[in-house]
Amino acid sequence: PSPASGYCPTMAGLQILRQPRPCRLAEGDTLELECGAIGNPPPQYQWFRNRRPVEGAQGPQLQVKLVTTAERGSYSCRVFNLFHEVWSREVDVEIGEGSGQTSVAPAPCGGQQGHPAPSPAPSSPIPAATDKVALLIGNMHYLHHKQLQAPMVDVHALAALLRQLDFKVVSLLDLRKAEMQMAVNEFLLLLDKGVYGLLYYAGHGYENFGNSFMVPIDAPSSYTSAHCLCVQRVLQRMQQRRTGLNIFLLDMCRKRNLNDDVIPQLGALQVTANIVFGYATCADAEAYELSQGELSNGIFVTFLKRWLLEDEKITVLLDKVAEDMGTLEITRGRQALELRSNLSERRALTDPIRPPAQDESSARNLQWAKAHVLPESRHLHFDCGVTVQLGFAAEFSNIMIIFTRVVASPEDIAQCEAKLTDLPEELDVDLKCTNKESPEEVGSPLAPAWSPGCPSCCLYSRLCGLQKLRQELAFTVCLQYRYRGMDDFVEERQAVSVGKPLIAKLNLQ
Amino acid sequence: PSPASGYCPTMAGLQILRQPRPCRLAEGDTLELECGAIGNPPPQYQWFRNRRPVEGAQGPQLQVKLVTTAERGSYSCRVFNLFHEVWSREVDVEIGEGSGQTSVAPAPCGGQQGHPAPSPAPSSPIPAATDKVALLIGNMHYLHHKQLQAPMVDVHALAALLRQLDFKVVSLLDLRKAEMQMAVNEFLLLLDKGVYGLLYYAGHGYENFGNSFMVPIDAPSSYTSAHCLCVQRVLQRMQQRRTGLNIFLLDMCRKRNLNDDVIPQLGALQVTANIVFGYATCADAEAYELSQGELSNGIFVTFLKRWLLEDEKITVLLDKVAEDMGTLEITRGRQALELRSNLSERRALTDPIRPPAQDESSARNLQWAKAHVLPESRHLHFDCGVTVQLGFAAEFSNIMIIFTRVVASPEDIAQCEAKLTDLPEELDVDLKCTNKESPEEVGSPLAPAWSPGCPSCCLYSRLCGLQKLRQELAFTVCLQYRYRGMDDFVEERQAVSVGKPLIAKLNLQ
Repeated sequence: PSPASGYCPTMAGLQILRQPRPCRLAEGDTLELECGAIGNPPPQYQWFRNRRPVEGAQGPQLQVKLVTTAERGSYSCRVFNLFHEVWSREVDVEIGEGSGQTSVAPAPCGGQQGHPAPSPAPSSPIPAATDKVALLIGNMHYLHHKQLQAPMVDVHALAALLRQLDFKVVSLLDLRKAEMQMAVNEFLLLLDKGVYGLLYYAGHGYENFGNSFMVPIDAPSSYTSAHCLCVQRVLQRMQQRRTGLNIFLLDMCRKRNLNDDVIPQLGALQVTANIVFGYATCADAEAYELSQGELSNGIFVTFLKRWLLEDEKITVLLDKVAEDMGTLEITRGRQALELRSNLSERRALTDPIRPPAQDESSARNLQWAKAHVLPESRHLHFDCGVTVQLGFAAEFSNIMIIFTRVVASPEDIAQCEAKLTDLPEELDVDLKCTNKESPEEVGSPLAPAWSPGCPSCCLYSRLCGLQKLRQELAFTVCLQYRYRGMDDFVEERQAVSVGKPLIAKLNLQ
Repeated sequence: PSPASGYCPTMAGLQILRQPRPCRLAEGDTLELECGAIGNPPPQYQWFRNRRPVEGAQGPQLQVKLVTTAERGSYSCRVFNLFHEVWSREVDVEIGEGSGQTSVAPAPCGGQQGHPAPSPAPSSPIPAATDKVALLIGNMHYLHHKQLQAPMVDVHALAALLRQLDFKVVSLLDLRKAEMQMAVNEFLLLLDKGVYGLLYYAGHGYENFGNSFMVPIDAPSSYTSAHCLCVQRVLQRMQQRRTGLNIFLLDMCRKRNLNDDVIPQLGALQVTANIVFGYATCADAEAYELSQGELSNGIFVTFLKRWLLEDEKITVLLDKVAEDMGTLEITRGRQALELRSNLSERRALTDPIRPPAQDESSARNLQWAKAHVLPESRHLHFDCGVTVQLGFAAEFSNIMIIFTRVVASPEDIAQCEAKLTDLPEELDVDLKCTNKESPEEVGSPLAPAWSPGCPSCCLYSRLCGLQKLRQELAFTVCLQYRYRGMDDFVEERQAVSVGKPLIAKLNLQ
C-alpha cells in the first residue's frame, strides 16, 4: 500500500492535523512519532516501517524505547475510518551509533502536542513558523453582481494543497459582509507571534488609491469601501498579532471603483519586512476565469497550484508562477501576476512548525479545531425496524455534506429511502442539492475525490452557508418505505439535532 | 597587463560604448571584433589575444580573414589616451574545424555598428534587449529642505556598475523640476521597442495614494505633486515606447505627504508584464543614509551594488538584495527593501543587446553620445611663451572637471600657474571647487579612482549643473607667472570657448 494510493487530502471528514516529523537519534534513545488526526467516525491508526505494518502500533503515537539501528527506516501512518483512508507523509528515522549525548537533532523529533517542544535557537539557520494558518474565502453567488464560477474550485484546490503543507485551513464560500468580517476576526484569533498567516480571496474586488477591497456577496449594485473589506486593514491587524509571515493571495480584479471616492485613512504599516502579496493581476487590470466548464480553476490558481508545494522561498515561488503564467497566450496583455514583497528572510510555505510553548499552540489548535468539528455519525432506529446511518463530511468550513444510508431493514420491507427535510430556514437550502443519489448531483466539486471511497446506496444533501445557523442544526429524517406486495409508500419521521457543525460553532453572526 | 589593473570604469573621459562579443566560427571564416570607445583626447587601441598584444591590431575593429584554429583564444582590447586607460571585457573566440556553413552562432559575432545585425529569432530562449538605457538622478542640495549626502556616491557607484552591464548611462545630480522633466524626456527618446529602461532616483520623495513622487531640489517648503515628478507617469510614457523591461529603483522616503491631497488622475497602466520596482524602503517608511562620512553609500545602494552584476533574473536579484539588507541590524523595523514586479519573462540586467536594425540603434547611440561629448583637449599658447594644456573629464553627465597644466615654459620663467576664471554666471560655480591642486579638493567622489592615472602639477576645477548652461561654455584662463629673480607675479589672460559640454548639448531648458 503506497502512501499515494487512496490518498484523499480533500476530505475534511478525515484529516491529519499533525504530520510525523523526520528525526535523527542515537542508539538507546526513545523514538516518538505522532500522527494527529480528526475524523468522523473517529480515526483508527496503523503505523508502517518501510511500508510494512509495525506490530502493535495502532495509536496516534508510535513509541519505541531503547532504539537500535534495526529501527532505522521510513515511517508512515495509515489513518482510516469506515469511509475514508488517509496516509500521513513518510518520514525518515535515522539512528546513529553511540550515545544520545553526541547525536545531532536538526529537527525536533516526535509530535508537537503532548511533548515539551525545544525552544527555537535565537537565529536559527532554517526559518520556522510557530504555526501556519490560512483563511480562504471564495465569493461566487453575488446578489447584485455577476456570478463567478471559479472561486469554489480554486478555494477547494488551494485548501487541499495548504493542508498538505500543514496549514490550518479555514475555507469559506459565499460570505456577506458581516460574515467576512467575523471570519477575518476568527482568523486573527488564530494568529500569534511567529505564525505564518495566509489570506486567499477569490471573488469580485477593486483597488483604489493603492488599497485592495474584497467585495462580499451582499454588496449593493453601487458599492463603496463601506460595503467591502480592505485587505490592508487586515494586514495591519495581522501585524498587531506579530505574525512571522503575512501572505496575501488576491484573486480578483484591481480596476478602480469609480463609485468610491473615499480615501481610506489607514495608519502607517509597520516595517515588519515579512509581507508578501501575490496578485492574480496587475494594478488597473482584471483577473480572468477560464471558460472550461463549471469545475475548472481560474487562471491564477491553475498556475499557482503547479508550484505551491515547492520548497522555495515564497517570493521565488510566486516569481516562478508569474513566469509560468506568462507563457499563457490567451491572457497576454490582459492579466499578469504581480508580486509585492518586503520579505527579508528566506521564508517558505514549507517551513517547519516549531511552536514556542505548548499552551499557546494548543489554544490555537482548539480554536481552529472547533470550526472543523463534524457531528458524530449516528444510527437512527425507526419503529418499522429500519436502521438508517446518518453521516457527515465537510467540503468547506461552511459547507457540509450529509448522507443517509439504510444499513438494516426487516425482510418484509421491499424498498426504503431516508430523506432529509425540514432543514433550518436560514440555510436557504436548495432542493436541487438535497437527497440525491450521487455527490455530483448535489453540486459538490469534491465528487471525483470522494465517490470511490464512499458508500453506495446513499442519499446526499449539501448544506451551504453554515455560518448563518442561528441555533443547533435540527432537521427531520423522513423514511419512506414500501412493504413487499404493496404499492404505496409509508412514511415515518424522526427529528434529529446534531449541534452546531463546522464554522457554525464559532457563532459568526 | 591584466584587464583589472588601471581599470577605470568611472571615467567618462574615456569610455567604451561597445564591448566586443564572444563568437564561435569555423575555419576559413572572418573574425571581426569591435571595441567602440569615446574619449578626450581621442582613444587609441591595442588588441590582445591571450593577454599578448596582437601585432598590427591597433584600431577599434579587429579583423582576421580566413581564420584557423590558431586564432582561438581570449581577446580583449586596451583603450587608452594620454591620461587614461580602459580595458574592454575579455571574450572567447572559438574556432571549430570544418566549413563555415555548418558552424553554429549562438551570439552575433563582431560589433553591432557597421555590420548588419542578425535579426533575433521570434521566440529566442535567451531574452535580449534591443538596447539598455539608464537614467540616474541624485538630488542632494535642496534649496528648502534637508541636504542629503549619499545620492552623489550612490549615483556614481550605480553608473559605474551599469556601464559594466553595457547600459547607456545618463547620470545627473541636483536637478530642478524643469530639468528633471527634460531629463526624463531625453531618457524617453532613448527608449524604443524592446529597450531595457532603468530609472534610478535618490533624493527626497513621498508616496500618496499608491503613486511615488520624486522631489526636485527647487521644491518649495510645502510641496505638492504639482512641484514633483510622478514615477508612475514616467512608467506610462515608457510603456508607450514599447520598452522590453521597465526597472525603477527608488531610493527615497515613501511616507505620505500630508500637504498633498491631490489625487492623481492617471490613466490605467498597460499590462505589459515587464515592470519591476525596487523600493529602498516599505510603503509609509523612510530610507536611510549611513552616517559614515561624506563618501559612503546609502543603505539601499550599499547592498544593491553587491548583487547588481549577478547574472540573475532582475526579480531574483532584488529579492537577494532584500534578504541581504535584512541582515542589517541598524535598520531593522525601519527600512526594508520592497519589490514589486509583474515581470513574466526571465529578464536580467546582464541580458545581451541585440539591436533589431542598424538605423534605430545608431540614432539612439547618437542621441545618447551627444550628452557625453567632452570638449577636445587643447593647448593654449601665451605670448610670454608658456603653453598650457586644458583637459576635461566627466564625473556625471552634468558635472565636468576641467584641469589646466603647464606643459612648456621659457627658462626665464620661474613659476607659473593657469587658473580658470570668468566662468558663466548661470553655473553658480563654487570658488571652493576651482583651481585646486587635487581632485579631492574640488569635492569629486571620483578622486580615488582618478588620481593615480592623472597628471600631476594640474589645477582642477569642478563645474556642476551643466544643464543650466544657456550658451556655449566660455571662460578665461588666467596665467599667473613670475620671472626668475622677480618677486611679483604677472598675469596674462586668454578667453576660451569650448562649446556645450555633456548634457548641456541637449538644451534641457
